[in-house]
Amino acid sequence: MSSTLITNIGELVTNDPEADDLLGTRPDAALVVDGTQVGWVGPAADAPAADERVDVGGRAVLPGFVDSHSHLVFGGDRAQEFAARMAGTPYAAGGIRTTVAATRAATDEQLTSHVARLVAEMRRQGTTTVEIKSGYGLSVHDEARSLAVARQFTEETTFLGAHVVPEGDPQEYVELVTGPMLDAAKDHARWIDVFCERGAFDADQARAILRAGAAAGLRGRLHANQLTYGEGVRLAAELGLVAVDHCTYLSDADVAALRDSGTIATLLPGVEFSTRQPYPDARRLLDAGVDVALASDCNPGSCFTSSVPFCIALAVREMGMTPAEAVHAATYVGARALDRDDVGALVPGRRADLVVLDAPSHVHLAYRPGVPLVTATWVGGRPT
Amino acid sequence: MSSTLITNIGELVTNDPEADDLLGTRPDAALVVDGTQVGWVGPAADAPAADERVDVGGRAVLPGFVDSHSHLVFGGDRAQEFAARMAGTPYAAGGIRTTVAATRAATDEQLTSHVARLVAEMRRQGTTTVEIKSGYGLSVHDEARSLAVARQFTEETTFLGAHVVPEGDPQEYVELVTGPMLDAAKDHARWIDVFCERGAFDADQARAILRAGAAAGLRGRLHANQLTYGEGVRLAAELGLVAVDHCTYLSDADVAALRDSGTIATLLPGVEFSTRQPYPDARRLLDAGVDVALASDCNPGSCFTSSVPFCIALAVREMGMTPAEAVHAATYVGARALDRDDVGALVPGRRADLVVLDAPSHVHLAYRPGVPLVTATWVGGRPT
Ligand SMILES: [Zn+2]
Ligand SMILES: [Zn+2]
Repeated sequence: MSSTLITNIGELVTNDPEADDLLGTRPDAALVVDGTQVGWVGPAADAPAADERVDVGGRAVLPGFVDSHSHLVFGGDRAQEFAARMAGTPYAAGGIRTTVAATRAATDEQLTSHVARLVAEMRRQGTTTVEIKSGYGLSVHDEARSLAVARQFTEETTFLGAHVVPEGDPQEYVELVTGPMLDAAKDHARWIDVFCERGAFDADQARAILRAGAAAGLRGRLHANQLTYGEGVRLAAELGLVAVDHCTYLSDADVAALRDSGTIATLLPGVEFSTRQPYPDARRLLDAGVDVALASDCNPGSCFTSSVPFCIALAVREMGMTPAEAVHAATYVGARALDRDDVGALVPGRRADLVVLDAPSHVHLAYRPGVPLVTATWVGGRPT
Repeated sequence: MSSTLITNIGELVTNDPEADDLLGTRPDAALVVDGTQVGWVGPAADAPAADERVDVGGRAVLPGFVDSHSHLVFGGDRAQEFAARMAGTPYAAGGIRTTVAATRAATDEQLTSHVARLVAEMRRQGTTTVEIKSGYGLSVHDEARSLAVARQFTEETTFLGAHVVPEGDPQEYVELVTGPMLDAAKDHARWIDVFCERGAFDADQARAILRAGAAAGLRGRLHANQLTYGEGVRLAAELGLVAVDHCTYLSDADVAALRDSGTIATLLPGVEFSTRQPYPDARRLLDAGVDVALASDCNPGSCFTSSVPFCIALAVREMGMTPAEAVHAATYVGARALDRDDVGALVPGRRADLVVLDAPSHVHLAYRPGVPLVTATWVGGRPT
């Protein structure tokens, strides 16, 4: 097992939960990678010997980003629909149904190469763990193959057959999702998710779907309270889910429920940027003691960014987060939102997934919005 | 003189002013570079022979971005001041004076290598022409050497001795700027600029400075109406300047004056993003018949983005521009704002400065915010 000493680190963000500051930031630190894991972190002056040495030239080193919410398996794009939305002009679009049709029409090879391209793009921007949902197949066959495609790229696959009702009777569709579709999907997925929103699935349907998923060995997640107030967030808290995503419209009771259940609120500000909607209030959640994660929600309809650094900059500009809170949300809390304790921090024993920034500190991710600052991304102890 | 045929272009944006659409977009087009210039543009099926052939794989090809407003010559950074501003906490900062002190303390070599790094960063993001201002020296010696540093990287250098009054009596400082400082600066600059704003220089001072600059052979530009309503924009129109920059607070009379004079309004939305201020209203200007340019204003205080793609995405999200208008503003109108007719369009005879996007159309610059989509930047007919 070979070891690598990383030296001349301008700022090392460890996310060590035992540190005094949120990010566990260490000046004048060095880090040793042993095989695929972090082996040692400490003052550069005390660094042990290693087989190799990498000088990062005063740059900041951070845990790799954990993007806990994305929809990468799809065909086509919806650029013209986006342009029309921004111009406020009518557009005879099928919305999500356009993507469902294009996804069903795509071959496995086309879907796979498209996901590969987006995952590589994410990697270049510092994402080292990504969750990928199905949800543009919406048939037994197409949901299962979407998840099989996703599984080639990540362990964090999520069955989202309950994205929208594609056609016909909603209750019959719920029976399909909880029956044959779940059967076909379950071996390719770790998680099950429901879009719980007016016009999609209500709380009773969501509860039934998550319960069926649990019986099949899948853990639950929810899309909730994105477009309006509703029952989804309270359902997530009631079920003790690890995370509930969007959380744009929250009542005081919703916030209290999240605090009491310990459910993480995963905010997706790229969506509000790309749909010109009001942003969720991260400050309110943090001040109430709710844990906040940040993720991209990368998808062809409401948000086609793959950039976690962009989401960090938005979180600081628009949601009242400090740069440190935003970075923590996109790394440590993102890992917790996937119930992962092997990534999200640079402490001994965790996977050596890290990002080198062309900047001296994590603050630059917000201070220099839009600038591609990630100069290297390491996964499992190696540059990729 | 060697020639290169660029083929398999997904969408070619020419900015040809004789085209029917704003961007002069051509499907199924090819482009021939002859030496440093565009030699031929037309249907791929009619393309002439060339020495070399480059297949861009269905990607979009656009004119390179013309960033007509930046402040790249400075020492230090102000990341902590930025973080404090975002948190709304007090910060005992010297503001611009912090940067002036760090700039004066830096060696020529340090300033040069810092500008080189930022220009390279811009290049990777598609900027092929950049204007660079002085304004952090504020002494005869430091303004002249700032411009000499900038001149190594661009012809578009701007003397901004009148950035703020560094100390002492404002009127005495204006005499310094229009006297010995201008004498020392004029051989290194093409333009002269004044920060015309309450707390900086008033319209009479700005007029005197631009007049002195004109007598020394420098053309005028203005920073105006960034922080509040004022006389700057009307002064720019009165003097017939080619462009006036910021234009955040405009009265109806200001808009009418710009329309009547033909002065371009250069909007800098990265500033409003990074200072959490309201955005300028591009839609109002365009609807009134005013030409709008977009630029980065890259500087260490109010906006440290170097990313024109980010500014395009902001212009669409926040300022009511269509993706086509935003791209046009950052290319063709940017060139006009520097009074350049040799760049900003991909038509025969113009410099072959172009960008290849990892996307099929220009819309993706707004549809995919924060994603580094620029895969190649050509300047003067060659990839850089
Ligand atoms: Zn989603
Ligand atoms: Zn400026």
